[in-house]
Amino acid sequence: MKKVDENSRIKTSMGTLTEDSITVRGNDLVNDLIGKVDTAALLFLEITGRLPNELENTLLNAMIVAIAEHGMMPSVIAARLTLMGAPESFQGAIASGLLGAGDVFVGPTSNVARLLQVEAKEFPGTKTETAKKIVELYETRNQRIPGLGHPHHLIDPRSEKLLAMQSALSAPSAYTELMLEVQRIASKRRGRHLTFNAVAAVGSIASDIGIDWRAVRGIGLVARTIGLIGHVFEEIGNPSAQVIWSLVQENTDYSDPTGDES
Amino acid sequence: MKKVDENSRIKTSMGTLTEDSITVRGNDLVNDLIGKVDTAALLFLEITGRLPNELENTLLNAMIVAIAEHGMMPSVIAARLTLMGAPESFQGAIASGLLGAGDVFVGPTSNVARLLQVEAKEFPGTKTETAKKIVELYETRNQRIPGLGHPHHLIDPRSEKLLAMQSALSAPSAYTELMLEVQRIASKRRGRHLTFNAVAAVGSIASDIGIDWRAVRGIGLVARTIGLIGHVFEEIGNPSAQVIWSLVQENTDYSDPTGDES
Amino acid sequence: MKKVDENSRIKTSMGTLTEDSITVRGNDLVNDLIGKVDTAALLFLEITGRLPNELENTLLNAMIVAIAEHGMMPSVIAARLTLMGAPESFQGAIASGLLGAGDVFVGPTSNVARLLQVEAKEFPGTKTETAKKIVELYETRNQRIPGLGHPHHLIDPRSEKLLAMQSALSAPSAYTELMLEVQRIASKRRGRHLTFNAVAAVGSIASDIGIDWRAVRGIGLVARTIGLIGHVFEEIGNPSAQVIWSLVQENTDYSDPTGDES
Amino acid sequence: MKKVDENSRIKTSMGTLTEDSITVRGNDLVNDLIGKVDTAALLFLEITGRLPNELENTLLNAMIVAIAEHGMMPSVIAARLTLMGAPESFQGAIASGLLGAGDVFVGPTSNVARLLQVEAKEFPGTKTETAKKIVELYETRNQRIPGLGHPHHLIDPRSEKLLAMQSALSAPSAYTELMLEVQRIASKRRGRHLTFNAVAAVGSIASDIGIDWRAVRGIGLVARTIGLIGHVFEEIGNPSAQVIWSLVQENTDYSDPTGDES
Repeated sequence: MKKVDENSRIKTSMGTLTEDSITVRGNDLVNDLIGKVDTAALLFLEITGRLPNELENTLLNAMIVAIAEHGMMPSVIAARLTLMGAPESFQGAIASGLLGAGDVFVGPTSNVARLLQVEAKEFPGTKTETAKKIVELYETRNQRIPGLGHPHHLIDPRSEKLLAMQSALSAPSAYTELMLEVQRIASKRRGRHLTFNAVAAVGSIASDIGIDWRAVRGIGLVARTIGLIGHVFEEIGNPSAQVIWSLVQENTDYSDPTGDES
Repeated sequence: MKKVDENSRIKTSMGTLTEDSITVRGNDLVNDLIGKVDTAALLFLEITGRLPNELENTLLNAMIVAIAEHGMMPSVIAARLTLMGAPESFQGAIASGLLGAGDVFVGPTSNVARLLQVEAKEFPGTKTETAKKIVELYETRNQRIPGLGHPHHLIDPRSEKLLAMQSALSAPSAYTELMLEVQRIASKRRGRHLTFNAVAAVGSIASDIGIDWRAVRGIGLVARTIGLIGHVFEEIGNPSAQVIWSLVQENTDYSDPTGDES
Repeated sequence: MKKVDENSRIKTSMGTLTEDSITVRGNDLVNDLIGKVDTAALLFLEITGRLPNELENTLLNAMIVAIAEHGMMPSVIAARLTLMGAPESFQGAIASGLLGAGDVFVGPTSNVARLLQVEAKEFPGTKTETAKKIVELYETRNQRIPGLGHPHHLIDPRSEKLLAMQSALSAPSAYTELMLEVQRIASKRRGRHLTFNAVAAVGSIASDIGIDWRAVRGIGLVARTIGLIGHVFEEIGNPSAQVIWSLVQENTDYSDPTGDES
Repeated sequence: MKKVDENSRIKTSMGTLTEDSITVRGNDLVNDLIGKVDTAALLFLEITGRLPNELENTLLNAMIVAIAEHGMMPSVIAARLTLMGAPESFQGAIASGLLGAGDVFVGPTSNVARLLQVEAKEFPGTKTETAKKIVELYETRNQRIPGLGHPHHLIDPRSEKLLAMQSALSAPSAYTELMLEVQRIASKRRGRHLTFNAVAAVGSIASDIGIDWRAVRGIGLVARTIGLIGHVFEEIGNPSAQVIWSLVQENTDYSDPTGDES
């Protein structure tokens, strides 16, 4: 057995247990947290290492609530089908659904935050100057700007609501204002209104309350977990997986891979 | 193509989208929920179909906060090791950790709730009579009663705190009182104090605020998701997976399976 | 830092690396395995600690091939939907699909093997006596016997094929014969033919080639992984997740949970 | 209910079931596949839509065997820890381990294949000309070439073995030769020998037998699944998760996130 090098210690500042206490990021769990902070505050503490102030707490709750439940989404369908095959594992169904919370559906909130927290830092200047450079950067890369556009709506009522709350609370808003400027300039250059959607609102407001862009997708993961728990519990009592499966079977056409069957 | 039978429709009461609105379990998302309810209230709504009152909301937050973060737990280690191999997938690391939230670590809260909501119903009578029958039932089955016992502590400070909150709020407590009676009787018959641990507190109080036993483990899953997000984000900035892997390698002895080759 | 106790070493006989060699369960990977054994033989080695003989190898391949691909199964649909949300994670889509390989779809092969390897051991006697006791045991428990019955077919052509191979190879068949006797007696008592389905064939033949009942579901997991890889790769080139999602949306009826709001 | 558009059918060429038969990618499962093809051939069929010839089959088996088992790897540790928390879910432990088969550990085989199948196509010319352009491309991008280099070894014995088999079988080898040329040129420019590691061998040989670069990581996923099944089954009988957990706890130092505790 090799001697374990003192330099090879595992370091964490998340939490620790002793005989007498549980410490969560510098706070005594029993005396300082339970009954004193809510679920969103705990998430904020986990990510940032400090407890949120009241407006940060309120906005984080609002963002989680805004994106948790949208009915029969792909991740929900996956979780329900997984439960049908493995009813012994509630957590397996939830995990199955969470695995779809990737670059397409949840990741874009982190991409908005990266645009604001990282990419925009390359372009110092006025808000308008920075926003213009950002729009040009995405044009050069031939990439869609995350958070802008919606298949059906010119305004996203969730964004409106979140922005109205941010304003009513007089919360920090520099990142959000920059993102709105990006929206304005991009809309003008594209010659049509690009909706400031919920992804843009979450990515911007999360940035304004101090959440690192790489952790922003954590907001979506908590929201998804909650939505998935609701759906999986409904599936236990009122299953729809069998109907979904039959629907898919009835609407599937098989063809041989060689393509030459007659 | 078969015609889809009207009787084979998928039914849900979780949520729905129209052109103009998002409905979450009977509530208008934008007008009734965002900014008006917090994350725990949304979880309660998802599971029960109604919004919690203030004391239900407070207790649900307290339970989630109580069990979210305990440092380097097995699920956290799994998530960190997963991130090392797949840094492109934040959600994959979270899902990997959640998959350990099964019968041993998170499931027991549901088992406490099942004991109270289902098994105890078979034994009507006074609280003491019912508790005695329950203890006998587990003795007959030669099964440990979930939620009782702790390797180190006679009292679990998290349980004390949660029970004190329940009492201070004058919240419903019939299930909790039954579980405490189960603890007293089981301790007497075993001839030693069995700790009323955090699992017992969560299973009991969740039952008292109306959460179905099959959904009780959802509380632990939300708490775990939050804790895992914190650890995975720390791992991105200050990785420890390599050290963990080396530690395991250094402390592993390999032997041939047959044990006799020369 | 506590001293690591020599008694607390991690023990494994799976494999190990040194500067010069890789050992897999007592075999030198490069000289004894690569190019000399096939994929199924490796699975057999992983589970049993020894390489299979030729008939064991043949039968294990046949079982994997028999259950790998059945078109648009629930796990496949889940994996495709997961890929739509997280195209960056091939492995996440596979994992999502594997999570449905639980007690309902893949677990029953292990249940057949447990019936044969564990439960039947409680009833020594002739094959017929043991089978009769087993059938009675399941009747007493009011439980379906795993592996028997099929919604549409009196014979399962995959079972016929696997049993014919076992016979042609003069492979050990004591467990299979016991399971067939269980089928005969159960059919007689139920007054109708119970199909000896593919689950029964895999559980029985796996037992006959020496695979522990707890590892039998590994056969299904390898088979599923292969099937899922095919479907996920097809999904990358010819996606159907969007159509599936639309189908589900179009066929979903939402109702408020309380059912009474106006 | 909207009418389902005939244009919105789900299309697949993976497999289908009828009353009388099961078809897998154009082959009758019972008559053409079970007992006639092995596990690796089935994987090849799933990915390419055709059955492999003998040398393709042999090489695919060799690659899977080469990368399946390496002892206590990170994914194995994750799977064992997951099983400790959720012993009811064999598949959950496997899925937890598979989730680490991402861009760092398994993905690079696909990256080698992409380099050969996609990137090299941009640079027509002799093998040496193309290889030189590829090396320059990676230098320009300041990116490591996948498959080259090893912390300890100048030659990787698995690569040697796989290349020797390819040669002995007179198998197609154009991609492998190009990759070896890339290795030679990159080594010369870096002034030191860059090992042609197992990742390079798998990515190259898989390309030579016709596997699309996006499906190459499927080889690693099948191999991992098999290795994980072995470890999870060992964990059931001889658990090491508790020792691993203790080791991690004993070697972890907690510090408050604010860094100012005294």
